[in-house]
Amino acid sequence: MTIETISQNRSHGGMQGVYKHSSRETGTGMTFSVYVPPHQDGAKLPVVWYLSGLTCTHANVTEKGEYRQACAELGLIFVAPDTSPRGENVPGDPAGSYDFGLGAGFYVDATQPPFARNYRMWSYVTEELPELIGTHFPVDLKRQSILGHSMGGHGALTIALSHPDRYRAASAFSPIASPSQVPWGIKALGGYLGGDKAAWRKHDAVALIEDGARCSDFRVDVGDADPFLKEQLRPELLERACAEAGIPLNLRLQPGYDHSYYFVSTFMADHLRWHAARLQA
Amino acid sequence: MTIETISQNRSHGGMQGVYKHSSRETGTGMTFSVYVPPHQDGAKLPVVWYLSGLTCTHANVTEKGEYRQACAELGLIFVAPDTSPRGENVPGDPAGSYDFGLGAGFYVDATQPPFARNYRMWSYVTEELPELIGTHFPVDLKRQSILGHSMGGHGALTIALSHPDRYRAASAFSPIASPSQVPWGIKALGGYLGGDKAAWRKHDAVALIEDGARCSDFRVDVGDADPFLKEQLRPELLERACAEAGIPLNLRLQPGYDHSYYFVSTFMADHLRWHAARLQA
Repeated sequence: MTIETISQNRSHGGMQGVYKHSSRETGTGMTFSVYVPPHQDGAKLPVVWYLSGLTCTHANVTEKGEYRQACAELGLIFVAPDTSPRGENVPGDPAGSYDFGLGAGFYVDATQPPFARNYRMWSYVTEELPELIGTHFPVDLKRQSILGHSMGGHGALTIALSHPDRYRAASAFSPIASPSQVPWGIKALGGYLGGDKAAWRKHDAVALIEDGARCSDFRVDVGDADPFLKEQLRPELLERACAEAGIPLNLRLQPGYDHSYYFVSTFMADHLRWHAARLQA
Repeated sequence: MTIETISQNRSHGGMQGVYKHSSRETGTGMTFSVYVPPHQDGAKLPVVWYLSGLTCTHANVTEKGEYRQACAELGLIFVAPDTSPRGENVPGDPAGSYDFGLGAGFYVDATQPPFARNYRMWSYVTEELPELIGTHFPVDLKRQSILGHSMGGHGALTIALSHPDRYRAASAFSPIASPSQVPWGIKALGGYLGGDKAAWRKHDAVALIEDGARCSDFRVDVGDADPFLKEQLRPELLERACAEAGIPLNLRLQPGYDHSYYFVSTFMADHLRWHAARLQA
């Protein structure tokens, strides 16, 4: 488990790095970024996982997310993986669209050809990358939390619901709340997992909650000017499922905000403070 | 003086816009960004001008500069122009290099063919754009300040020194302190202004100070791991000139930091607070 350093830049007193490694899960090289805040030698720090949305790589949040000042103040390591395998031999969407294939792994382990070999983002994010980060960075893997944006918000919610003892906090910006019920998700889950919708339920936060999965609580922000709000995100489905299951959901509809990183960066520090309170308790 | 809105995104309670207009100075379309913080209807706000470095457009600082939270808290409008004219008929460096021509206007009014027609960034930034911003945004032009990065740090210092009654504060990240004495500057000033070095002195902060120009004070941050520090930036020349002229210079060599926006964004809020104290006095 070796990693190659692509770049390291001092920032907000800590170090913003970009790294690459050869992934056993995806069978490709995978690039990710890690911010390590200033800390005492020998200290082990809590780690926040950030999952990005459609079309993104690690770079979008690394450049535009405005998380470093808060991570430096709160003592949080921040890890941003890519959103899919990439490479010459990795199949993408035959139609070349932005919402399936490259940049659109949807945080599942694909079962369908030709995607099953490489599209293993669930195992990559929940198993392989934590092992790697635990080996190479000063993290305390007993203190993990997860958040994400859009497709990555979907990933954060489903991964947290599936590992209630691992992630101490889970939050999301503009998540795809119930992929089984919206066009982006129907295309992706059908393409990666096939037509049997029973297999989709483990990758749908609303279905997981209906089937008994639980989290302590969620924080979710969505912009009311988000063009994907009503067709793709549908936070009201999550709101109803959480209400019926008794899961405290702090859902905030933010007036005038859209789906961009101008929105995400506005509320990033707030989310990180919310995570830190749970990680440091 | 009309402007075209390219994009507007709600961010940190205010509005991040990108706009385009047809410039009389450059004879081209020019794109710039403006962040307007939350404010009361009818209020007129102080404006901070940010000048970018080589290869940049308005977009680099707009995406990576981490200025919006501080501007929202401090009530500052933040304007980021482009770094040169651009367009099919605009001549660039015949050799296609990054440090002259497109993306490298050096904040001068060129006198040499074929650059004299379009490369009028001095007049653009000090005359035309302030008029335009004053017409279209809620700014108080009696309260202006200026800062910049690298080539833009050079621009901020020379423009402030040349307009002591206009800018209430001037600061810089990694400025080219004395372009007349370093390779980037010798190439640019020679190419735009010709071989008579007397004409260069108005575009060299150190020479301006030697010739009697004054500012109340400067704040300058430079990373000690900046690869351009010793050959191109040379802050010690500014330090000596300020000392001899009695200009208070708060020059800080930041340990471990490089030339990137990871450095700029780390100290952006600090600079904006320093500007705000002078703008709101």
